[in-house]
Amino acid sequence: MSAALLNRLKPAVSVAIRPWSCKPPRIEPSSAASARLYSGLMEPGAPLFRQLFESESSTYTYLLADTDTGEAVLIDPVLETVDRDLQLITELGLTLKVACKHQVFLLSCLLGDACEFRSFAGHSTALDDDDDDDDDDDGLFSAVNTHCHADHITGSGLLKKKVFGLKSAISRHSGAAADLLLSEGDRIRFGKHSLTVRETPGHTDGCVTYVTEDERMAFTGDALLIRGCGRTDFQQGSAQRLYESVHQKIFSLPGHCFVYPAHDYKGQSVSTVEEEKKFNPRLTKTLHEFVSIMNNLKLPKPQKIDISVPANLVCGLHDI
Amino acid sequence: MSAALLNRLKPAVSVAIRPWSCKPPRIEPSSAASARLYSGLMEPGAPLFRQLFESESSTYTYLLADTDTGEAVLIDPVLETVDRDLQLITELGLTLKVACKHQVFLLSCLLGDACEFRSFAGHSTALDDDDDDDDDDDGLFSAVNTHCHADHITGSGLLKKKVFGLKSAISRHSGAAADLLLSEGDRIRFGKHSLTVRETPGHTDGCVTYVTEDERMAFTGDALLIRGCGRTDFQQGSAQRLYESVHQKIFSLPGHCFVYPAHDYKGQSVSTVEEEKKFNPRLTKTLHEFVSIMNNLKLPKPQKIDISVPANLVCGLHDI
Repeated sequence: MSAALLNRLKPAVSVAIRPWSCKPPRIEPSSAASARLYSGLMEPGAPLFRQLFESESSTYTYLLADTDTGEAVLIDPVLETVDRDLQLITELGLTLKVACKHQVFLLSCLLGDACEFRSFAGHSTALDDDDDDDDDDDGLFSAVNTHCHADHITGSGLLKKKVFGLKSAISRHSGAAADLLLSEGDRIRFGKHSLTVRETPGHTDGCVTYVTEDERMAFTGDALLIRGCGRTDFQQGSAQRLYESVHQKIFSLPGHCFVYPAHDYKGQSVSTVEEEKKFNPRLTKTLHEFVSIMNNLKLPKPQKIDISVPANLVCGLHDI
Repeated sequence: MSAALLNRLKPAVSVAIRPWSCKPPRIEPSSAASARLYSGLMEPGAPLFRQLFESESSTYTYLLADTDTGEAVLIDPVLETVDRDLQLITELGLTLKVACKHQVFLLSCLLGDACEFRSFAGHSTALDDDDDDDDDDDGLFSAVNTHCHADHITGSGLLKKKVFGLKSAISRHSGAAADLLLSEGDRIRFGKHSLTVRETPGHTDGCVTYVTEDERMAFTGDALLIRGCGRTDFQQGSAQRLYESVHQKIFSLPGHCFVYPAHDYKGQSVSTVEEEKKFNPRLTKTLHEFVSIMNNLKLPKPQKIDISVPANLVCGLHDI
């Protein structure tokens, strides 16, 4: 695949929501203390949180859920670890619904045609539009991608095959197919919690950062990595846009906000906004210095780019 | 190395404490909110917490620290990632002191002789003996191993070379050399926090689990893994002892207590006591069934056992 063609490809992200049908055995909270049983944050009322890793692509997948309602969001699922993630979701008593969906955007994207994308269904049930008339829904499962990955194949398509009602979500600037096309400020709700979308382009046009409502956790995709950042030399990459995105949309968050990236290659699991503002070797530089650094990285092409980018434009379902 | 010889080897663990000399730049907390800046637990007063990973041996290293005093504990450091861990410790403003130590137990252990071990120095400053006359110390760095690893080389020896005053700690039943030889109920203090030792033999004689004082986090080593457990077919392994250790010393913790293992091979980062009591495929079985499972695993020898076990008996310093 040529660089010119790659530059015309739009990046993809995928999310899904508000499903469940067969209810797996659920561990019921029986007291205020046990309501926190599975909360990675340990605070009363905090969402359940799990960080999961796929070692071949060094990708982090994040599970967040409301422990009262069982509604869950999965950020950046990876094809190879879908079964692991679904088993955990089942064991934790989150209620899911199996679904199938097909996308037809691959060919026109590959050819660089103008692609018109639409929300397939349920936009109002996925995003926070104060539509509370869906109270008959007692569970939720969302799969959210931060951008169209060139280094791994997203698991959203396979998840949608396995989980009825699952909806995929991605930035509307990504050029990818998804149930929910996200814009700046959109909120993805799961129970009493939500993730707010901040558009953070630069690695790709469609990169977004998801921020919890208390601004304690930011899922930064490839825009901001721990002591690093995503490359900007393919897929509509722009060092200047990335620099502005990180400084305006991520470094403006509280210093104690945890930074959870889409990847890490050194065994690091989390950072904070304050740490990255002080110690990130690239983004502490001036814009001019940053652009110079990024334009001279001379990185090899990602291992899976030829299959990952096209596959991710259709939610990762690739000859399955 | 023969199985008979391995069976005579004693397993090792390593910890260290109460050092610092040159003070790296530190990020000062300036308010109640910022005091939580680097706390992985997000609660006021909770210790700083970081989970770190070494991919070759799939080993987790854990950093805990008191954000007020800068005193830190490192659980299960790995040789290959010592520099990464020290850089993070420096950036986070923890105060360290470089130290060197030598051990001479390797030969007699290899020969199966009765080894007599002793605490080299500073036992009273490492363990909680209500000795508060060391208030002139304003920093701490401890490296703690949960047991003598056969699958990776501990980084404690190299850390002691690089961090003056660092002390290593390990179970006194491990047969390994360390500054602090730990027993059931011992407490490793770091600032206002501490880890309590629970002896959990079975994978090795010297396996211990470290539990925070609020019983919200248990660092279980290889005794209890996420949906698994350590093997029991070498290094004094005993399936029955492991079963009893986990049930008596770990499953007796609160259900919401987080389980942080020494290894994970599937990209999982954390579990809880309640989850493992419900879903661990081995330890939910009866003792008889568990022993039968463990005796029929037919696992290959760990990749690094020939070099890891002897090296770890002397704190991992192996021809460096």
